[in-house]
Amino acid sequence: MNEYYPTDSLKSPRYSGIPTFMRLPVEDDPSKIDVAIVGIPFDSGVTYRPGARMAPRDIRVQSALIRPYNPVLKVDPFKLHRVADFGDIVANPFSIEDALQAIHRAISELLHSGVTPVIVGGDHTITLPTLRAMHEVYGPVAVVHFDAHLDTWDSYFGSRYTHGTWFRRAVDEGLVMTDRSYQIGLRGQVYSEEDFDFSLRNGFRMVTIEELKENRGAKGLVEQFQALGDTRVYVSFDIDCIDPAFAPGTGTPQIGGMDSFEAVQLIRGLKGLDIVGVDMVEVSPSYDSGGITSLLAANLLYEFLCVLPAKK
Amino acid sequence: MNEYYPTDSLKSPRYSGIPTFMRLPVEDDPSKIDVAIVGIPFDSGVTYRPGARMAPRDIRVQSALIRPYNPVLKVDPFKLHRVADFGDIVANPFSIEDALQAIHRAISELLHSGVTPVIVGGDHTITLPTLRAMHEVYGPVAVVHFDAHLDTWDSYFGSRYTHGTWFRRAVDEGLVMTDRSYQIGLRGQVYSEEDFDFSLRNGFRMVTIEELKENRGAKGLVEQFQALGDTRVYVSFDIDCIDPAFAPGTGTPQIGGMDSFEAVQLIRGLKGLDIVGVDMVEVSPSYDSGGITSLLAANLLYEFLCVLPAKK
Amino acid sequence: MNEYYPTDSLKSPRYSGIPTFMRLPVEDDPSKIDVAIVGIPFDSGVTYRPGARMAPRDIRVQSALIRPYNPVLKVDPFKLHRVADFGDIVANPFSIEDALQAIHRAISELLHSGVTPVIVGGDHTITLPTLRAMHEVYGPVAVVHFDAHLDTWDSYFGSRYTHGTWFRRAVDEGLVMTDRSYQIGLRGQVYSEEDFDFSLRNGFRMVTIEELKENRGAKGLVEQFQALGDTRVYVSFDIDCIDPAFAPGTGTPQIGGMDSFEAVQLIRGLKGLDIVGVDMVEVSPSYDSGGITSLLAANLLYEFLCVLPAKK
Amino acid sequence: MNEYYPTDSLKSPRYSGIPTFMRLPVEDDPSKIDVAIVGIPFDSGVTYRPGARMAPRDIRVQSALIRPYNPVLKVDPFKLHRVADFGDIVANPFSIEDALQAIHRAISELLHSGVTPVIVGGDHTITLPTLRAMHEVYGPVAVVHFDAHLDTWDSYFGSRYTHGTWFRRAVDEGLVMTDRSYQIGLRGQVYSEEDFDFSLRNGFRMVTIEELKENRGAKGLVEQFQALGDTRVYVSFDIDCIDPAFAPGTGTPQIGGMDSFEAVQLIRGLKGLDIVGVDMVEVSPSYDSGGITSLLAANLLYEFLCVLPAKK
Amino acid sequence: MNEYYPTDSLKSPRYSGIPTFMRLPVEDDPSKIDVAIVGIPFDSGVTYRPGARMAPRDIRVQSALIRPYNPVLKVDPFKLHRVADFGDIVANPFSIEDALQAIHRAISELLHSGVTPVIVGGDHTITLPTLRAMHEVYGPVAVVHFDAHLDTWDSYFGSRYTHGTWFRRAVDEGLVMTDRSYQIGLRGQVYSEEDFDFSLRNGFRMVTIEELKENRGAKGLVEQFQALGDTRVYVSFDIDCIDPAFAPGTGTPQIGGMDSFEAVQLIRGLKGLDIVGVDMVEVSPSYDSGGITSLLAANLLYEFLCVLPAKK
Amino acid sequence: MNEYYPTDSLKSPRYSGIPTFMRLPVEDDPSKIDVAIVGIPFDSGVTYRPGARMAPRDIRVQSALIRPYNPVLKVDPFKLHRVADFGDIVANPFSIEDALQAIHRAISELLHSGVTPVIVGGDHTITLPTLRAMHEVYGPVAVVHFDAHLDTWDSYFGSRYTHGTWFRRAVDEGLVMTDRSYQIGLRGQVYSEEDFDFSLRNGFRMVTIEELKENRGAKGLVEQFQALGDTRVYVSFDIDCIDPAFAPGTGTPQIGGMDSFEAVQLIRGLKGLDIVGVDMVEVSPSYDSGGITSLLAANLLYEFLCVLPAKK
Repeated sequence: MNEYYPTDSLKSPRYSGIPTFMRLPVEDDPSKIDVAIVGIPFDSGVTYRPGARMAPRDIRVQSALIRPYNPVLKVDPFKLHRVADFGDIVANPFSIEDALQAIHRAISELLHSGVTPVIVGGDHTITLPTLRAMHEVYGPVAVVHFDAHLDTWDSYFGSRYTHGTWFRRAVDEGLVMTDRSYQIGLRGQVYSEEDFDFSLRNGFRMVTIEELKENRGAKGLVEQFQALGDTRVYVSFDIDCIDPAFAPGTGTPQIGGMDSFEAVQLIRGLKGLDIVGVDMVEVSPSYDSGGITSLLAANLLYEFLCVLPAKK
Repeated sequence: MNEYYPTDSLKSPRYSGIPTFMRLPVEDDPSKIDVAIVGIPFDSGVTYRPGARMAPRDIRVQSALIRPYNPVLKVDPFKLHRVADFGDIVANPFSIEDALQAIHRAISELLHSGVTPVIVGGDHTITLPTLRAMHEVYGPVAVVHFDAHLDTWDSYFGSRYTHGTWFRRAVDEGLVMTDRSYQIGLRGQVYSEEDFDFSLRNGFRMVTIEELKENRGAKGLVEQFQALGDTRVYVSFDIDCIDPAFAPGTGTPQIGGMDSFEAVQLIRGLKGLDIVGVDMVEVSPSYDSGGITSLLAANLLYEFLCVLPAKK
Repeated sequence: MNEYYPTDSLKSPRYSGIPTFMRLPVEDDPSKIDVAIVGIPFDSGVTYRPGARMAPRDIRVQSALIRPYNPVLKVDPFKLHRVADFGDIVANPFSIEDALQAIHRAISELLHSGVTPVIVGGDHTITLPTLRAMHEVYGPVAVVHFDAHLDTWDSYFGSRYTHGTWFRRAVDEGLVMTDRSYQIGLRGQVYSEEDFDFSLRNGFRMVTIEELKENRGAKGLVEQFQALGDTRVYVSFDIDCIDPAFAPGTGTPQIGGMDSFEAVQLIRGLKGLDIVGVDMVEVSPSYDSGGITSLLAANLLYEFLCVLPAKK
Repeated sequence: MNEYYPTDSLKSPRYSGIPTFMRLPVEDDPSKIDVAIVGIPFDSGVTYRPGARMAPRDIRVQSALIRPYNPVLKVDPFKLHRVADFGDIVANPFSIEDALQAIHRAISELLHSGVTPVIVGGDHTITLPTLRAMHEVYGPVAVVHFDAHLDTWDSYFGSRYTHGTWFRRAVDEGLVMTDRSYQIGLRGQVYSEEDFDFSLRNGFRMVTIEELKENRGAKGLVEQFQALGDTRVYVSFDIDCIDPAFAPGTGTPQIGGMDSFEAVQLIRGLKGLDIVGVDMVEVSPSYDSGGITSLLAANLLYEFLCVLPAKK
Repeated sequence: MNEYYPTDSLKSPRYSGIPTFMRLPVEDDPSKIDVAIVGIPFDSGVTYRPGARMAPRDIRVQSALIRPYNPVLKVDPFKLHRVADFGDIVANPFSIEDALQAIHRAISELLHSGVTPVIVGGDHTITLPTLRAMHEVYGPVAVVHFDAHLDTWDSYFGSRYTHGTWFRRAVDEGLVMTDRSYQIGLRGQVYSEEDFDFSLRNGFRMVTIEELKENRGAKGLVEQFQALGDTRVYVSFDIDCIDPAFAPGTGTPQIGGMDSFEAVQLIRGLKGLDIVGVDMVEVSPSYDSGGITSLLAANLLYEFLCVLPAKK
Repeated sequence: MNEYYPTDSLKSPRYSGIPTFMRLPVEDDPSKIDVAIVGIPFDSGVTYRPGARMAPRDIRVQSALIRPYNPVLKVDPFKLHRVADFGDIVANPFSIEDALQAIHRAISELLHSGVTPVIVGGDHTITLPTLRAMHEVYGPVAVVHFDAHLDTWDSYFGSRYTHGTWFRRAVDEGLVMTDRSYQIGLRGQVYSEEDFDFSLRNGFRMVTIEELKENRGAKGLVEQFQALGDTRVYVSFDIDCIDPAFAPGTGTPQIGGMDSFEAVQLIRGLKGLDIVGVDMVEVSPSYDSGGITSLLAANLLYEFLCVLPAKK
């Protein structure tokens, strides 16, 4: 067993000890690890209810329940990779620009060290600097974007860098292989039919909740994922793609979403792809109820660890 | 764009401003609008947990998240109709009779002005005076009644006007086209097999949750709806038809209900019918969790706006 | 109507009166009843979040909403059996051994009086002494075990009697007809592939959530249940087999579980079997949200009453 | 020790057993007891937030923490009196008039049996029928009325029987020795200076929070209480006389109130008076936080038991 | 009675109607009113827990309980002044600079119309642009600053405009009559003794909680207030000057604070001063419990209305 | 500045980073530090509501708000001592005996290294093994015991080691200088007058809440503290000595307690004494409301750090 392994719960109860992600060791030297679970407590890009800055802390707490072995995928990700809690990236709450730069820099550093970042936001704005770092190292990547919302507005209150505009920025900056990218879980009202233009024009594969709930549901979608072959894939998971009954703790909840079982199936369906990074965003603990959203996020992060390709 | 349009969220953030339904203008002159969203804060008809009187206020608050365009139905209801927040009907909490009369009078006035009422209860008692007003203008109407419960008791504690007896009263008063009416989402215990006699005798189409979850589910039901043709239809939606996981904020919760996605599909399935009025009842905010029930109610009300027939 | 019947809610409102299980009479003389709903407020066997000791009290409160007649199964269990609130078994919180003995003794006494126990835990540890009492009277029984977890660890912190080890103990003590037993709702991480060895070696039928959500779902499983014929069956229902959205109030929640509708179908599918006892465990009210978990537990207990075989 | 004594917590843990008031036996035969703790789950008289109907149930639950001996007053009230949980009075939620009659009847019966009622409301409306019963047996009584509000409006929405008008009704009906009565804890806004006319005209001793917090505070007031000598005194305690920080669970909270310590001192200061009945009203559990209001109410009820005169 | 008067609660229940501040009419023409209650939903200046942007909405809801007449000060502020709900100032959440300008502009406009602003924040950053507007019209003003914290840091994360630096900015910009200003309720840890240098150098009268709880408490302070004579006074009230038991809904709570009674006394003690504006900041509803913080804020705002000088 | 200093909040926001006590470094080598803040997540000794095992985790989270300098005592404890987060002691939840031994061993080790333990419980049982360790190193110590309860029962359910019996055990084992010890904050009911016998016989100075609220209150008590001179003092602080309005998150709440300001004064009054160890027990986060209890506990722990004598 490698030294980066969750504290043994048969020796130290799950409720004890300093709360790190999944009870993993803390490690700030990227050269020693394969996968960094890293928090980005930042929510200055939200348009409605703030609070996502508190998510890394709360997800650390709730992740104490994660055990190591995935019996469906038949993998122990903590044996497959050296995974550690890499701490949080300091992102200036008073300057989105500064914050974007700091995040870009920190994720770049991880990538240059060969570490796969598993990011715990924070609001969805943080995906933009992460994709910039991805592009710096890999060129454009396919994005699998789970979300109730498109996030392709041009600006909001004059700001071009928010949780509702990051995806347009990423495309405009050439960071995304648009024709190999997905938007999954779309639902709810928009401003007008034109809201879809950007996604249509760029050839995103848009998967609405109606499609997802249809006949073959998650299964059909998983088959399509596999067609991505060895394309480099970045996965951005906005917790609001899931229904508020399962994930009440989020800033812009949207009714009629997928359930937690469907979310797990979809993530597992990414197995085999060349995933170069992952984020889990928009968890907002002050709107959560009994920690169920943070617990769900922690479990989905674990599922992501299980489908990350092993470092050679 | 007509002048009755939600405040532009790209100019004034959703969390700001006086909370009206869906950030619509307030209008108390019925001659200026097509559809009135009107609150009826009344809960003196409940048999278990009170609190539905607080629903209009809370649904106003949560409805701030509603955007205008429905991409599935491809309609912007605020362009289709002139919709406004019509305020609340004053209903005497100490006299059910007075309250019924005041509600009847207020809804009548709307109908006589050619306005379609979209009502935010309040407990289910309020549907009776609403149907009286409907009858006054239209004669008997078909009722599509979403509910976990039958609401066909004869009386409760000697009272013939409660949230559990309104439907029997409405039938007895000749307000309902019983053979063209539905009761959807029925489940949970009753007092005895006889509880169904009234509905059976009157020829209601009773749709239990078991039927709804069966093979063709919502789809099969939607096809039946369409057979209503140009019958005038009133839709009464008791939030407890939905499972407590999705709608905990209600007075007599019943486990094993439909989910929010199913509810949306069913409402959308009413499109094309001659809907003359709608109500959303039994939301009880003090039992809600993080506002998810009120948010759900607000979204379902929006879906109703999308399926209302346009005024010619 | 027998004298053990819930208080009439048309005469005394549901929110009034001393909160007994389902508003039933209290009876401590086993000779007078057929079925005893009995609380075991004990949680000294938990490994993570305590609080299940508060469940009997809270489920009593929430059970006030239960009405008597089940229109799907077409049965009024309070007419079929003489059911009463048998109070709580006193279980020493400071000594698991003492508590196990007290529970064993109390359940034995019920069984010897011909009473079927419907047990409201408490943590899952309590199932072990209950099975000991069952064995004493009936010999080995088939166990239908609803749970997210296997509960077959050998020990935890040196203790062999906990909520995660009770099932192994029961098998080792010869209390279980292992090849006729089920574990239903399994999901989430384990420690390693070896965690399944015990269940595999003993021939349990393990039903994962993936299997349950597949094609024929609950229906397929129900058909298998019926093959149990006249085997004596004990049903142990850990509320965490259900998703945290529906049952947040539990000590070791696991995402991706069944919903409340599926749970009801599975319990109803046990009808016709020779059920000799039932427990509902791991409800932890201080983590609940608006009482929905306790309300769910109360309803599932009611469904169990409906499928218990009538005493001749 | 008499047989009406709380269950021994050293033998049966406080969290176990059917929740009766203070873990006392249930007794519905008034001839066997001296003091009846009786619930009146009724809240149809409220003008703002309903929910007080749930108070008797919740106070029963929270009262499990009460131990028997009061070391400050040096009394064990359960040895001094035979005290029991007398259950709840059934009060029709749909007819205030019916409810008032039922309450009057039930309290009369207790008084005629020589039992002192310790009443757990319900909203403040219930004090009127209680005073009618008092008058029937004792003639006018002095009322010590703890409340943030005067409750002397003439009517509300045309109703003369509400939680804001009961005290005027009681005076108009001649039930109160007005010149020997107190209103304690008054604060917050009123409609106009004239609101005080009724109290002034009737000679109530009005004690505002400002007076209470002044120099001699509770002590000064207690000395005045003692001047009541052997006048028959009824004490009506509206929990909103206490600050919302200590008692958030109430229907019309008013900031700037007394704290729990002050409340205890004031109740203890009633010792020696000829108290003929007591009520604790306006606890509204759905607005409570962690049960602290119901716990406070349970403790104050206990303090009342300690100052009731012993039956000879 | 003037036309800007709260909706009559004896005609329309308090829980009904669109929630405006204190049930007042909405008015956006400053020329028609004397006092504007105006929201500033802005929290981009916070350093810890965000959420104060939701305060105006929530305080509107909770303020429904306010009645018109203050029996201690013997004033009905709604008769004394024409007071209205002026709506919310739109403040860009993505640019503190933009937001400061918009707030400055809006408050200036009110002042130039002779309207006294009563501001409902928002985080404490909003006081800076308000003081800029004050200065523009009145020159420097005395500031009575209620707060647990000094708010005199120079910068935070490189930003000079935050909720912890606004007061230093205001002084540096010459907006404050420093030797006639107060900081009241100071407590809790700071970074070092030097934190007080700015306040000391500028001659603020610092009143710690220890001083406030001493012998003459609020009374002594009120006498000092009166020495301000006809100096123009701006009052900024950070809700965290009050203890978290009374005001849990705030972003940087500090234990050991004043209680709500003391806060009321202090505000009443400002009567007679030439108050030119008031703000109530740092209420953060998502951390509130049962609305008690917003209710407290609403009541304190009412008390401020009562001590505002009447327009001649 | 020494290297054991809280993370600089002007560089890394308070809401970011892995939650250690007061944002201090983690250190498990006792030889490097003067003071260890150490968690003991154990609650198997409680008699009513469990959950204190979660306190160290939650207090770590809430303690992020603590800044370093105490302006009243004029001390920065992190400069005075080398203070670190020492992690949690593993205490077997299934065996009180094992747990007591593990705690004893761990505290002994700290003491032998010259480290002052500042302990974060856990239920009150943990004070017994801590006192055993104290005795081992220092002989008997004076105990200053803040609590609503005496904790001097002989046994509970046959167990001699619980949160209600630890103090009697400690005295019986000769660990306590009884005539120099205090019990402060006593209130609420007991079982009988005899409950005080043990304390009286042993000469404890019992300070009831009545005494504490009297004339000289905390001040008078602080003067007495100083008479302890250079006696070695252990301080055990049960959070339930504080009123539930300020500290709702506890297992056996008792109304009518001290407020947070009084608690701070009392702790500061211990300055100058030879304090050899401190504990903060009985915080139970699942009953807390918005984290105010854990925040209060964190602040009181900070105050304790400020009064610990500096190591020479």
